[in-house]
Amino acid sequence: MRSEFQTEPVPLLSEPAKAPGRRERRRRETREKIYRAAMRLFSERGFFETTTEQITEAADVGQGTFFNYFPSKQHVLSVLSEIQLTKIRAAREQALRGERSLHDVLHALVHDIAQEPGQSQALTRALFSAIFSNEAVRSTAAELLAQGREVLAVVIAAGQERGEIRPDGKAADLALAFQRAVAGTLFLWAMQSKIGLKTWLEKAFRDFWAGAATTKGRIR
Amino acid sequence: MRSEFQTEPVPLLSEPAKAPGRRERRRRETREKIYRAAMRLFSERGFFETTTEQITEAADVGQGTFFNYFPSKQHVLSVLSEIQLTKIRAAREQALRGERSLHDVLHALVHDIAQEPGQSQALTRALFSAIFSNEAVRSTAAELLAQGREVLAVVIAAGQERGEIRPDGKAADLALAFQRAVAGTLFLWAMQSKIGLKTWLEKAFRDFWAGAATTKGRIR
Repeated sequence: MRSEFQTEPVPLLSEPAKAPGRRERRRRETREKIYRAAMRLFSERGFFETTTEQITEAADVGQGTFFNYFPSKQHVLSVLSEIQLTKIRAAREQALRGERSLHDVLHALVHDIAQEPGQSQALTRALFSAIFSNEAVRSTAAELLAQGREVLAVVIAAGQERGEIRPDGKAADLALAFQRAVAGTLFLWAMQSKIGLKTWLEKAFRDFWAGAATTKGRIR
Repeated sequence: MRSEFQTEPVPLLSEPAKAPGRRERRRRETREKIYRAAMRLFSERGFFETTTEQITEAADVGQGTFFNYFPSKQHVLSVLSEIQLTKIRAAREQALRGERSLHDVLHALVHDIAQEPGQSQALTRALFSAIFSNEAVRSTAAELLAQGREVLAVVIAAGQERGEIRPDGKAADLALAFQRAVAGTLFLWAMQSKIGLKTWLEKAFRDFWAGAATTKGRIR
């Protein structure tokens, strides 16, 4: 499912500098297959109701293979963390290269970041309930948020450097505001909304950007 | 635990027009006692790990008494919904009376609304995990959010009427932005923050108000 707002394909996992060999490629494919099967099942049944056996069956791999990749079910969620961090880092590279306006970089990122959890309300609910009831999942997610915020602060600082983002706000505070906008939107949407996630993300980004942009940043 | 930002005592449950009799008062006290004991246990053990037996023991009431008030453990959370709605309605009354600036009404409300769930990160996590893994809890919370947003839209509209809030934003969108700010802050704070909730709520409100206020609204 590609977002209409996404402009560049984002690699699923961080790519090393040189192209991977066949063995490494195969490894990644299997890891991704397990991850995709797990997310589908979490969405259908919930995180706690899904067993590793169901995941291996759905992914069509052996139980032994599963445990070669992930020590436990909750570790599958670390793939999601990698995906999200890869997207935020891609935004940082774009911001530092300076080919796109900061508005466009952050606008695309809002939708990119929400894409994985936002595949369905059921999936977002499953992920949130895992985060808030399992200490290991929560601490993985907390680590992702902290790292993500640091990278976001670099993106914001690049925007301040280029005069598109208000210089009077701290980059760290604006990075927090960005995360708050996305997290708050996913939270409200997963809880109740009959309205499409994209519409609510658009409102959230519009509010964020209205508060963050300089006059120059607003003109596009 | 009273917030330093709170300015008026908020009644725990909606008060009827005339003072309640002794029997009704006793009833409310018992209901509140059960609610408080439940919240303490949810915070200490988690929502799903807490049994009704533990709640009745902690509240020092019989099991029969518990079920006189609540059909099940999850129904205890409806008291939290009432508390939150009572606070939002109190803000609406203040906004309509026009004695305080809209800035002050909404600023106090951000902290009031976060007060119950924000008693500890453990409690917020317990509440969020209950919301996202139990369909009955989620639908109660969703109903609260929808009702809350309607009342908030009246508060916002009063601010637009008085020239303190931008007339170009839809009241419903600004009500959504208010909820997004509070929900996003609680979400990020419960997940990871070592920083006090009040500090993050202040940033969230400052950003919200910067986006919502007219020049007149900003001057206080």
